[in-house]
Amino acid sequence: MKRLTVLGSTGSIGTQTLDVVRENPEQLQVYALVAGTRVDEIERQVREFKPQIVAMMDEKGARELKARLRDLPVVVEQGMDGIIRTVTAKEPDTVVTAISGRIGLEPTLAALKAGKNIALANKETLVAGGELVMETAKRLGRSIIPVDSEHSAIFQCLEEPNGLLEKILITASGGPFLGWSREQLSEVTPEMALKHPNWSMGAKITIDSATMMNKGLEVIEAHHLFGLTYDKIEVLVHPQSIVHSMVQYQDGSILAQLGRPDMRLPIQYALSYPTRWSSPFERLDLRGKTLTFQEPNLKETPALALAYEVGRRGGTLPAVMNAANEVAVYAFLQQKIGYLQIVEIVEDICAEHEVLDATDLESILEADDWARKRTQERIQNC
Amino acid sequence: MKRLTVLGSTGSIGTQTLDVVRENPEQLQVYALVAGTRVDEIERQVREFKPQIVAMMDEKGARELKARLRDLPVVVEQGMDGIIRTVTAKEPDTVVTAISGRIGLEPTLAALKAGKNIALANKETLVAGGELVMETAKRLGRSIIPVDSEHSAIFQCLEEPNGLLEKILITASGGPFLGWSREQLSEVTPEMALKHPNWSMGAKITIDSATMMNKGLEVIEAHHLFGLTYDKIEVLVHPQSIVHSMVQYQDGSILAQLGRPDMRLPIQYALSYPTRWSSPFERLDLRGKTLTFQEPNLKETPALALAYEVGRRGGTLPAVMNAANEVAVYAFLQQKIGYLQIVEIVEDICAEHEVLDATDLESILEADDWARKRTQERIQNC
Repeated sequence: MKRLTVLGSTGSIGTQTLDVVRENPEQLQVYALVAGTRVDEIERQVREFKPQIVAMMDEKGARELKARLRDLPVVVEQGMDGIIRTVTAKEPDTVVTAISGRIGLEPTLAALKAGKNIALANKETLVAGGELVMETAKRLGRSIIPVDSEHSAIFQCLEEPNGLLEKILITASGGPFLGWSREQLSEVTPEMALKHPNWSMGAKITIDSATMMNKGLEVIEAHHLFGLTYDKIEVLVHPQSIVHSMVQYQDGSILAQLGRPDMRLPIQYALSYPTRWSSPFERLDLRGKTLTFQEPNLKETPALALAYEVGRRGGTLPAVMNAANEVAVYAFLQQKIGYLQIVEIVEDICAEHEVLDATDLESILEADDWARKRTQERIQNC
Repeated sequence: MKRLTVLGSTGSIGTQTLDVVRENPEQLQVYALVAGTRVDEIERQVREFKPQIVAMMDEKGARELKARLRDLPVVVEQGMDGIIRTVTAKEPDTVVTAISGRIGLEPTLAALKAGKNIALANKETLVAGGELVMETAKRLGRSIIPVDSEHSAIFQCLEEPNGLLEKILITASGGPFLGWSREQLSEVTPEMALKHPNWSMGAKITIDSATMMNKGLEVIEAHHLFGLTYDKIEVLVHPQSIVHSMVQYQDGSILAQLGRPDMRLPIQYALSYPTRWSSPFERLDLRGKTLTFQEPNLKETPALALAYEVGRRGGTLPAVMNAANEVAVYAFLQQKIGYLQIVEIVEDICAEHEVLDATDLESILEADDWARKRTQERIQNC
């Protein structure tokens, strides 16, 4: 349970802070409220949140409030001295500085010196007295956690990941045929499919990318790598391939990784991990860029729907889907089958397979062999 | 120094892996290369990277390669058995599995069992044998680091931040007057400026947001919070207010935090930190969303240029800029000065101030008092 003092409780950030308290009654308790001049609002807040202390900057307002709150055992403070007494009271752990303007500087310093952590929504304090405030916090071992959305974003990107995942969002370029009709797709040749709009890749993955089977394989890959159930793995079409994927935490916050579509960056990260090395690769320049996102059309991309189904079933079925797809893609590249037949054949072989739950190497290799043979037979009968 | 075995060195990911090795000669060394059939390319790679072992899947190719490499002390292996011997050789730490298809499964398992970490670019291995591979890695305490750009993105978002910052990118909505001419701006009334397109905020910050002084204050705030010099702090106009800010690491990778423009999320994070709590707040739905980014026009937003200059000068000057801005914003809200005069007056007061380097509380408060008085006088003379 964290005990809070909210400095500026009737303002925009203050009232939203109290919304957060209302949503988290097990974790948060209001110890003190501090307002400027709005008597009606602060009275309502005191009656709802029952703080031990309430302070008002405006002395006339404070007297009025005191009279109105005679029925409650709350201490009413007033003026800057009263505010300083309030933010330095022993019990609270955290002071939310949700007032606007330089007037926040002295209470913030006083709160730090009294051992409080600061949830800082008062940027003017750091603008006017940044060095002083940061040095004081450092010297006393106190935290200053930013509330400003921009600084919170940076802080979240810099902090150790902390919290349960709600889901991951895997982005997909959609490949070269995004939005094409089945009629148009039936005419696709290997040459057309090998031209990927963003990434320069090998032939197999480029065809998989066009059919969206690549994204299906990635969904299954993510299931294993990150230990997530399939309902927590979402695919989002993002034709510009700049946001490479995202994670959503249980509070709703999303972290994303962005970069140019250059595989050397993730390769280098995999090799430098757990650190990062500087790199000479061209940097992403977002100026003038437009990023779009859309839901994948599962009817137009049956491979993705199939991969979810196959992944959920598990056992030997993903090995079968993968083997059938490898054979079918090579048959397409050799012009033995048409583009739309790739996924149709994979679907048929999956439907035919008698799935085993076993995931030992022998069972996997046996299922893989069976699928390759059956797919070859199927292709010869085309 | 990491010693690598590159499985599939002549393919797309393989050659890009060797690019990364070339860029990081102090950190990476090639111990072994494994290719399928391309003799010319693998010969060239062996002559450049001088591995101890080279293996080819194709036995005829391997014989040809061996003949060509007679002048070098390299061991040439062939076929699946030779590949398994290569990936299990004692010396390398890491095997990059950059081949395509299920054929990667057995070498990956063999490498794990021989104590190697895997940089995994072979998704079919996890699709076919995900449980087996992940269990083997876990049991033996080995890492599987994803190379696929999507999974690398997720991995980077989930891992402890690791690496030096290159810069931070603070996003700015640009406020309600983005792109307006000075002529149009001269007509702006408090009512117009108080309507912010994305965020519901207090009056002071809404006006600051319109003039972009808010972003200037945030740049100075970020300088103090994150201990960064001003050349590492960039502002990027992003009118949709969905990407709340970003950090760029020294390898060029960018992490961003996204969410709906709802202050309750950063407030809750500041209060839940160092953990996260689940929240009932509406989630960001990116489907159908378009995100744009542009460079701020410093001529149209002199407040931002001023704040950089003031921040770089430091001392008592940021306190003066902030105080003058507070007074000028309230004068504008009371219709005592016009919209464009806000920043003009702040600029003048900053220019007039005799900056002290001192950052103790007394000096700050004295500079603040001086600036407020001078700004009031200036406004009365308007």
